[in-house]
Amino acid sequence: MDGETNIEKLRELFEQFPGIGRRQAKRFVYFLIRKDTNYIQELVNEIAKVKSEVTQCHHCLRYYPKTQGESGVCKLCAQKDGSMLMLVEKESDLENVEKMKLYEGKYFVLNNLSPHEREEYRALKKRIRYGITHEGLKELIFGFSLKPELEHEQLRIQSFLKREFPKIRITALGRGLSSGIELEYSDSETLKYALTSRIELKKKEDE
Amino acid sequence: MDGETNIEKLRELFEQFPGIGRRQAKRFVYFLIRKDTNYIQELVNEIAKVKSEVTQCHHCLRYYPKTQGESGVCKLCAQKDGSMLMLVEKESDLENVEKMKLYEGKYFVLNNLSPHEREEYRALKKRIRYGITHEGLKELIFGFSLKPELEHEQLRIQSFLKREFPKIRITALGRGLSSGIELEYSDSETLKYALTSRIELKKKEDE
Amino acid sequence: MDGETNIEKLRELFEQFPGIGRRQAKRFVYFLIRKDTNYIQELVNEIAKVKSEVTQCHHCLRYYPKTQGESGVCKLCAQKDGSMLMLVEKESDLENVEKMKLYEGKYFVLNNLSPHEREEYRALKKRIRYGITHEGLKELIFGFSLKPELEHEQLRIQSFLKREFPKIRITALGRGLSSGIELEYSDSETLKYALTSRIELKKKEDE
Amino acid sequence: MDGETNIEKLRELFEQFPGIGRRQAKRFVYFLIRKDTNYIQELVNEIAKVKSEVTQCHHCLRYYPKTQGESGVCKLCAQKDGSMLMLVEKESDLENVEKMKLYEGKYFVLNNLSPHEREEYRALKKRIRYGITHEGLKELIFGFSLKPELEHEQLRIQSFLKREFPKIRITALGRGLSSGIELEYSDSETLKYALTSRIELKKKEDE
Repeated sequence: MDGETNIEKLRELFEQFPGIGRRQAKRFVYFLIRKDTNYIQELVNEIAKVKSEVTQCHHCLRYYPKTQGESGVCKLCAQKDGSMLMLVEKESDLENVEKMKLYEGKYFVLNNLSPHEREEYRALKKRIRYGITHEGLKELIFGFSLKPELEHEQLRIQSFLKREFPKIRITALGRGLSSGIELEYSDSETLKYALTSRIELKKKEDE
Repeated sequence: MDGETNIEKLRELFEQFPGIGRRQAKRFVYFLIRKDTNYIQELVNEIAKVKSEVTQCHHCLRYYPKTQGESGVCKLCAQKDGSMLMLVEKESDLENVEKMKLYEGKYFVLNNLSPHEREEYRALKKRIRYGITHEGLKELIFGFSLKPELEHEQLRIQSFLKREFPKIRITALGRGLSSGIELEYSDSETLKYALTSRIELKKKEDE
Repeated sequence: MDGETNIEKLRELFEQFPGIGRRQAKRFVYFLIRKDTNYIQELVNEIAKVKSEVTQCHHCLRYYPKTQGESGVCKLCAQKDGSMLMLVEKESDLENVEKMKLYEGKYFVLNNLSPHEREEYRALKKRIRYGITHEGLKELIFGFSLKPELEHEQLRIQSFLKREFPKIRITALGRGLSSGIELEYSDSETLKYALTSRIELKKKEDE
Repeated sequence: MDGETNIEKLRELFEQFPGIGRRQAKRFVYFLIRKDTNYIQELVNEIAKVKSEVTQCHHCLRYYPKTQGESGVCKLCAQKDGSMLMLVEKESDLENVEKMKLYEGKYFVLNNLSPHEREEYRALKKRIRYGITHEGLKELIFGFSLKPELEHEQLRIQSFLKREFPKIRITALGRGLSSGIELEYSDSETLKYALTSRIELKKKEDE
């Protein structure tokens, strides 16, 4: 329908939201049109200041509220064990690992690199150099989901790590059988890891 | 993680968006944090003015851009045939029917009644009265999806229509077999309509 | 694994079962291997005699137990109203319609024509001729699910019906909105039928 | 429909097939009714002899064609490395692992134990004892999918293994990230194993 400039404009902005298609973006617009002005005002305020109320950690690149301190270093980077550094794709991966309370070390969020940075990984290299000098960094862990695009990135990172940081141990999260997947349908890659990283339930007694 | 007040606040506002759960609302927040300030500024501007740039049609209750004229009556209500009025649940239903170019008449969007109004249907009654007096309104069509909650509403509306507008013909969109549904799995209601509204492919020749 | 001739042979036979792929066919074989000999004996007996214990109705072509009488005509064809004949694709469609107790007439099951027969429809023509002469057949109803391949077949049947049986009324089950489908997502075909076969809820009083 | 005794009987027998419900069982019956007598005869023959043409391996309990030799020991048990024995739930698990050509050792199929046997595991104990005495068996591997019911069984087997075969090493297939699962959604158990069985991509150079 012609002339609907503002509606179309806002719809297009919502279409950039993660996971939102044309139809749902339009529903968002009509939802806002029907909402009372209080809600709109609040939403506008919160969106306007969301960037200014958080700050990016210089160390792990994740965003955290300025109320947690404006030192430029987040709580996780300030408090956790600096001898291990886990590379994760995105903040939600970090949050899931952190929730489990199984990992003592620090993190680095690759998706928060600017696209330009991601070509060079300068911030990552700087972070590793700092870790070696000031935190006793000994091991870099690839905490990547098993997706083709990430395997590619892992290879690129691995190659400069080996060259530029020869004294760092490099590991990746173990692979193997996951809950809910039948052995009958496991792929060859998974099975290979499951066989080579067998879990010891009992050693032979005479050993 | 404590202290994330603004992040939490904005997440809660996004959780009110149609079809958005907690996890996706959080993704929206992080998406905005990473977006450049230009985008944020544009989004804030468009949201702030979306209500003021549209106006609600007095006749069908749908929202349309003020640029289409500020008469208070939308193009559809100004131009289409006033002898038929189709009640639809929501604007996206109207848009789908309109796209097909199969229906000549006008519409009325029930979801755009205020909740209070929806108890009394005063705006709907006023609309029908206007139609009878000024537009030669003869038929009211229930254009409702077949959902239990709407059948209930249809019955409530039907009862006052019969009482207050005895001269109006009342119909509902035909029911029957839909594309992609096997006869084997059709429910009794659908089959009943499919039988009673059989399509004539050829009359007996001697008739 | 080589040499597994009988296992492979039986697997291939099971792969012909409707909806059964290679993997499930193999599971059937292993299931039988592990089953006790009583079950196997019973299964073999029942399969061996299943064809001989049923007989095909000469009129509607469906299969029914010989214990219901060996006249060659099934109960439905013997008892129901012969003025209407519904063409259905398969026996499960017939069973669903019959279960609803909404339709008084008789049936004809197209899938039970031999493939050769299906090219000529000789048995169908003979059935219609019999209906006209002996049962007062007046209307032929296409009781087809809305699938492209059936629409094609419907056109082929329609064309000879019009030519060879000009006095028969030909209809099809009505189309329109089905339970559980949103008006917002209805296709143009369905909407067209829904509009043209509107249900009268109340006529204008002065008519 | 009354009197359909044979049809109902056969339908019930098919309902015992793995993964087959009432509706599909009925479709099998109608499928057979329509099939030619040659197919029926073949099917009946193959089913009747399937049990007699295979024999169960005394060692791994899987079924194999008698044409592969009637020694009572299958090819896998005759040829593969006897120092490792993998317990699997069912033959299809064994087949998937075998297809990968990643594992040198032998197998034992628990589902082919009779229910009575499964309480005592006498056949399994006998198999292990034989392995120790004649095949140099050193390691028993749990090749189980990660399902609660199997974890339970694993614990029961583990406890008698430790008691009765103290010199055997006991392991389980490694757990960890599987292809296609996001780190963001990994459960705590999987993550724990992924962390403890990290894959070495490069050791520190000075080690």
